[in-house]
Amino acid sequence: MKLKEWGEFGIIDYLKNFFPSRGKRVVLGIEDDCAVVRGPRGFFYLLTCDSQVENVHFILSLFSPFSLGRRVLAVNLSDIAAMGGKPLFALLSWVLRPDMEAEWLKEFMRGIKEEAEAHGVDIIGGNLSRTDSQIVFDLTLVGEVENNLPLLLRSNARPGDLVLVTGTLGDSRAGLEIALRGSEEEKEKYSFLLERFFTPAPRLQVGRLLHSLGETIATIDVSDGFSQDLGHITKESGVGAVIEVDKLPISPSLREWSGEKGEDPFLFALAGGEDFELIFTVSRERGEEVKEFIERENGVPVTIVGEVVSQGGVSLRRGGREEKIISGWDHFH
Amino acid sequence: MKLKEWGEFGIIDYLKNFFPSRGKRVVLGIEDDCAVVRGPRGFFYLLTCDSQVENVHFILSLFSPFSLGRRVLAVNLSDIAAMGGKPLFALLSWVLRPDMEAEWLKEFMRGIKEEAEAHGVDIIGGNLSRTDSQIVFDLTLVGEVENNLPLLLRSNARPGDLVLVTGTLGDSRAGLEIALRGSEEEKEKYSFLLERFFTPAPRLQVGRLLHSLGETIATIDVSDGFSQDLGHITKESGVGAVIEVDKLPISPSLREWSGEKGEDPFLFALAGGEDFELIFTVSRERGEEVKEFIERENGVPVTIVGEVVSQGGVSLRRGGREEKIISGWDHFH
Repeated sequence: MKLKEWGEFGIIDYLKNFFPSRGKRVVLGIEDDCAVVRGPRGFFYLLTCDSQVENVHFILSLFSPFSLGRRVLAVNLSDIAAMGGKPLFALLSWVLRPDMEAEWLKEFMRGIKEEAEAHGVDIIGGNLSRTDSQIVFDLTLVGEVENNLPLLLRSNARPGDLVLVTGTLGDSRAGLEIALRGSEEEKEKYSFLLERFFTPAPRLQVGRLLHSLGETIATIDVSDGFSQDLGHITKESGVGAVIEVDKLPISPSLREWSGEKGEDPFLFALAGGEDFELIFTVSRERGEEVKEFIERENGVPVTIVGEVVSQGGVSLRRGGREEKIISGWDHFH
Repeated sequence: MKLKEWGEFGIIDYLKNFFPSRGKRVVLGIEDDCAVVRGPRGFFYLLTCDSQVENVHFILSLFSPFSLGRRVLAVNLSDIAAMGGKPLFALLSWVLRPDMEAEWLKEFMRGIKEEAEAHGVDIIGGNLSRTDSQIVFDLTLVGEVENNLPLLLRSNARPGDLVLVTGTLGDSRAGLEIALRGSEEEKEKYSFLLERFFTPAPRLQVGRLLHSLGETIATIDVSDGFSQDLGHITKESGVGAVIEVDKLPISPSLREWSGEKGEDPFLFALAGGEDFELIFTVSRERGEEVKEFIERENGVPVTIVGEVVSQGGVSLRRGGREEKIISGWDHFH
């Protein structure tokens, strides 16, 4: 069997079982957006790592080094957001080609620094290696979260809960299409979609607000695509979810662009990925109240898009019909 | 300017200045074998990350997946050893080709697990990405060290201190030569040198013992090569060091192999790299006593190889002549 047949999530399941966490300082091992370990008095530390590989996660010619630097950090910040944490410090591991320009790397660092300072992150370590082929940026990020309130876990969803999502979905994938194949006119007209792809804004404050509620809330950030990421919540919680596709939040820009292209914007919303919005579940009684609390305190719109049921993975309901679709991004398929 | 002209250590110096560490939980940023942050009561956490890139750090065909797995973790453990820490948990970030065999990855994981269990390390997180070219293993390791005793820092060396080193030097590089170009007969005869290359043994207990002394001790592990790694101590401490080359510890196997090959074993000892021994400095009065303490408690031989002087980088004294040579491994040269 090849890795591409085993699949990314098959390998991750194997890893989880192969490396059970047991140490006295470990609260949570391989099973959520971040690992959780004991921290200074009153706090847990959250740890997450993520690689960005050239021509897999990014195409070098599409990005200014500055915007790529910002993005590499932002993608990791989103995992801390999904655990309700405050980011603290990062270690950067870079695998670079010796014939790259020093000026390029300086601009890349400036991007990292701008994003780091915007979120109070210290860069405390790093590692440089050489490659002759695809460059890689790997980043380990550590955050903290108060240990006197429940963790925001993928396994927290219960039948009857509502499913909510912040912001709008599918913009980033449309932005990538425009960056790759759009005309100059299109790029100007749809600068919002481009911005959503190039400069993701991790929902850190939303995560903090959700954690502060002290409720049993499941969260995940949208990186591989809404339906696939929601699937991690249903799997870890041992439940199902029914999503009303027509309720998924679509931005006016995505609606207009997909109209012009004859595309279905809801497919972008379901499977696009890299939106870095937060999906979360909360009890039915508190749903409206939590939605309004987040909207008032943070300003981002929040949409109720479905509900948690007792079993059955992620089901999509559209115009009365129900379909079961899980699709998104698997790195080995 | 290209990165290869800027050089690995030029880039690292730039990074240090560009990302000064300021947060209240940060004790030490980019300047030593590990970063240091506040941990649970009575402890600091040590954080280090390190990448291993195919055809740069390892040649896939030379290694069994099991021995490569062990080695990837061991190399990182050595950085925790150099700070006197106890390793706790690791995050694995792997960039793999989809056409690799699942069986290969399972064996690799088994190697990681064996090394992890031998040292009480929990694997708490990971990340999988795809590549079409060179595979990369990046690992972030977290350890702890008691916060009521001085840290073992590169900047701790003072003029008059003695320079000591554990074990023997140069074996690993000779082992690599034999693995690459040796006959079957040579491989059998020099299995000790091969073992030193394939299965490095991080000096964790030595680091713990040095830290427990509560003295001002500078330490570093030998990864790039003795003279270059000692150069990090002299630079960070603002001092020099004079090394008696003839005193460098050479194993009987390296002496015999280099005699057969007409090679100078001391060049292997000075510049070979990947020995993962510990270099440390300690006050002249305590030198003999500390050497005997480590030898008695741990069993590894310790050799006094020189002394710290007020300035001048690393100087080598051999047969009465003094030379200044810093050579070793720069990833971008």
